[in-house]
Amino acid sequence: MPASLGELATEFGCELVGDPEIRVDRVATLTNASPESVGFLASPAYRNELLATKAAAVVLTEADAGDCRVAALISDDPYATYALIAGVLHPPAGHAAGIHSSAIIADSASISDSAHISANVVIGEHCSIAEGVYIAAGCVLGKRCSLGRDSQVLVNATLVEDVRIGERTIIHPGAVIGSDGFGHARAYSGWTKIPQLGGVVIGNDVEIGTNTAVDRGAIDDTIIEDGVRLDKLIQIGHNARIGAHTAIAGMTAIAGSATVGKRCMIAGLAGVTGHVTVCDDTVIMAQALITKDIREPGVYSATFGAEKDQVWKRMVARFRRSAALEKRVAELEAKVSKNDG
Amino acid sequence: MPASLGELATEFGCELVGDPEIRVDRVATLTNASPESVGFLASPAYRNELLATKAAAVVLTEADAGDCRVAALISDDPYATYALIAGVLHPPAGHAAGIHSSAIIADSASISDSAHISANVVIGEHCSIAEGVYIAAGCVLGKRCSLGRDSQVLVNATLVEDVRIGERTIIHPGAVIGSDGFGHARAYSGWTKIPQLGGVVIGNDVEIGTNTAVDRGAIDDTIIEDGVRLDKLIQIGHNARIGAHTAIAGMTAIAGSATVGKRCMIAGLAGVTGHVTVCDDTVIMAQALITKDIREPGVYSATFGAEKDQVWKRMVARFRRSAALEKRVAELEAKVSKNDG
Amino acid sequence: MPASLGELATEFGCELVGDPEIRVDRVATLTNASPESVGFLASPAYRNELLATKAAAVVLTEADAGDCRVAALISDDPYATYALIAGVLHPPAGHAAGIHSSAIIADSASISDSAHISANVVIGEHCSIAEGVYIAAGCVLGKRCSLGRDSQVLVNATLVEDVRIGERTIIHPGAVIGSDGFGHARAYSGWTKIPQLGGVVIGNDVEIGTNTAVDRGAIDDTIIEDGVRLDKLIQIGHNARIGAHTAIAGMTAIAGSATVGKRCMIAGLAGVTGHVTVCDDTVIMAQALITKDIREPGVYSATFGAEKDQVWKRMVARFRRSAALEKRVAELEAKVSKNDG
Repeated sequence: MPASLGELATEFGCELVGDPEIRVDRVATLTNASPESVGFLASPAYRNELLATKAAAVVLTEADAGDCRVAALISDDPYATYALIAGVLHPPAGHAAGIHSSAIIADSASISDSAHISANVVIGEHCSIAEGVYIAAGCVLGKRCSLGRDSQVLVNATLVEDVRIGERTIIHPGAVIGSDGFGHARAYSGWTKIPQLGGVVIGNDVEIGTNTAVDRGAIDDTIIEDGVRLDKLIQIGHNARIGAHTAIAGMTAIAGSATVGKRCMIAGLAGVTGHVTVCDDTVIMAQALITKDIREPGVYSATFGAEKDQVWKRMVARFRRSAALEKRVAELEAKVSKNDG
Repeated sequence: MPASLGELATEFGCELVGDPEIRVDRVATLTNASPESVGFLASPAYRNELLATKAAAVVLTEADAGDCRVAALISDDPYATYALIAGVLHPPAGHAAGIHSSAIIADSASISDSAHISANVVIGEHCSIAEGVYIAAGCVLGKRCSLGRDSQVLVNATLVEDVRIGERTIIHPGAVIGSDGFGHARAYSGWTKIPQLGGVVIGNDVEIGTNTAVDRGAIDDTIIEDGVRLDKLIQIGHNARIGAHTAIAGMTAIAGSATVGKRCMIAGLAGVTGHVTVCDDTVIMAQALITKDIREPGVYSATFGAEKDQVWKRMVARFRRSAALEKRVAELEAKVSKNDG
Repeated sequence: MPASLGELATEFGCELVGDPEIRVDRVATLTNASPESVGFLASPAYRNELLATKAAAVVLTEADAGDCRVAALISDDPYATYALIAGVLHPPAGHAAGIHSSAIIADSASISDSAHISANVVIGEHCSIAEGVYIAAGCVLGKRCSLGRDSQVLVNATLVEDVRIGERTIIHPGAVIGSDGFGHARAYSGWTKIPQLGGVVIGNDVEIGTNTAVDRGAIDDTIIEDGVRLDKLIQIGHNARIGAHTAIAGMTAIAGSATVGKRCMIAGLAGVTGHVTVCDDTVIMAQALITKDIREPGVYSATFGAEKDQVWKRMVARFRRSAALEKRVAELEAKVSKNDG
């Protein structure tokens, strides 16, 4: 939806340096921008791209505005302002209300007239679908699932059973919410499955990424609070709780009964082991494994960056003979102390 | 299904301290238990919850029974006994036999009259579905797949081709069994695909977790033995063999032609590299990478717990200058030896 | 499709030691080979299997031919030659052209007469499906997706929107191509979603593995060049670029805006962090995390192999007290230097 620079500046509280009448209709990278585009500069690393851009305007900080040869939309937080502008220029596609003729819907399910139910969707008994919900092709909702107003369940995603989802939440393609947790008791003759009886409660304004799996609780529910953002291929174990506005990047595993606080940021390939608690406002770096409670906010790490293989192998060999080195130092200390005496 | 404490004690060989006539109809956590519930205590960490619980009865060891103010079901292995009691009080939902009208089934497929085939299921040529099998909505079975008695394939799961599954096995939602292994020969002009021709053989009483992928064999079959439990988002490479009653937690990768023994326990985010053999009764901790054969049972690790970032970075810096430290120690040894001489 | 050893030798430039009239109709492992089979020896570790094989012929190097007691097909690269022979003896199943009656296809989609569209497939507006394409059951293609000649999209895979795929490319089951990247700006009251507006461009002769997720670009496109091979459960972030003929093993994550060069090989469970560039011809070992640009081709590592837990824990404890050891060495140096003085 096109807008003028003046309208955007007013709506999002930017100072505009340039002609307020210029109209734009899309966002673009600085490099590929056309004169109908708005770009943004969030990092000084892109200064050359800023100097050369053909965008109509660039969203940037006051500090960077001096290098901007086109119109400038000055913002304290250019990335967040860009996000809002992109949302105005590229509003999400609307979906006509209605139920595709191929959808299979249980008699006891309640579907709002304004919901969109796509092809081959299957909705089970006692489900409840609120106003403006969008369910894409191939999704399956088992018994007793509910979706709040304007939420979306995207292609081939599954809500297994007893999954309650708030408003404006997006479940991305292939995600599975509410399948059994990994509960098995070791017994005489192998493993005995622990019946998984809890549900999943997901708040408002949450995103659950593509092919991510959120377990149902073993007895009580697994809980994802408001505003959480989960990336792709993540596992959330049974009875975990993820605090409001926490963001977790791809391929991270949060094990069963772990509690992650509010406003945390967890990078990719990381892990939180079972029954561990991570306090609010914690940042966990890529591939770090959290094996005990974190009680103090801050940044936590446990990764070695990669090295050339032969350099790495020599460092590992020294690590493996560190006992010998400690022993040599102790022997030296004894000798030197004797020499001193 | 409700039961009396007396019935449960008799069926599962517990000593009952309390009124055998009390009836219960569900399991619960100690904290949220109602007077119709059975709870369990598997760890002394929950002693306070035990003291305060409103459960009708708690499953626990004789050692913990003194702290129990409600009825006690005394067991040597409370967690396993709880699992069995939960199975009695919460029997799995039955499924009416029959084939949904939207299912698409090849003429040559053989389907037991007592099987349940849900909406939008597709079953290919020469498949064989035994008594009591449940196939949930959206599942696709390619050619020549077979399912033993009372097995289940849950929502949107895929059996690609030549997948033979035993009895009482559960394939969780979104799992893909039998897709091509990662077989590519490097040639003149890029990669040449190695045709993947084997199948997958899965035993009895197995569970394959949500969105997990088990490759078909390259030539011979990939094999998952009886009683194996695989969690979510796991990869099992072509021609791997997973021994009976082994359990593997989420996001672990077992590479091609690896052999994992019987009764192993592998934590999450771990890996076993290709062609490696892990012996029976091995425990592998989270995020550990197994790069060579394990021939002796035991617990294997390779993880550093996370630290505050600045502490971690200093430790890594010292690790990287460990060669210099070794050199300094050697120089000291030379000097001290000379001084001694 | 059966062939004679003479035909195979001629077609693939092998020297044949043995009777060219012998006919074979399958490939097999050396151990399980029947007299109608061709086996291969790619590693001297299998010499005993070679001596005992009942195969009609074995593909191997000249150096190994002396140990071959059956016919030998001598090749400089036995594995690649085996791949080609397997492709001849086991040609992929053909698919009859046509559209299954249950498929749901938008009016504006263009489907070649020679394409095969299976059961329950959903194809959106303005899609374009070329000659010989195969789309398996349950796949969903959103708006403006295109598939080049002879490409395949396998069971329950999803092309979300604006995904352009070249020729002879295979998208494996459950893969999701083109879902939103993880773009969120931190704002006053939680996260603001950055609209994800780019597409995905995938070249010719690519394979995208089972349950792998490739993000759409944020603004410009995410790009997978010709001949790339991605294994299972991989994540490719928005605006990443994967260079031609690069192969990436399972459960590896390539974060947003990362660039991986051509002909790289990345093992499983590894990671490349956002905005990092990896040069052509780089090899990254399992579980290594690449946190900064790699500018020189070579092999890069960052993994400790697993150890028995008590050995590992002692090594980690020493690592954690390495500051103390450095201090002790410095103190020794001071003392020894004083003693010297």
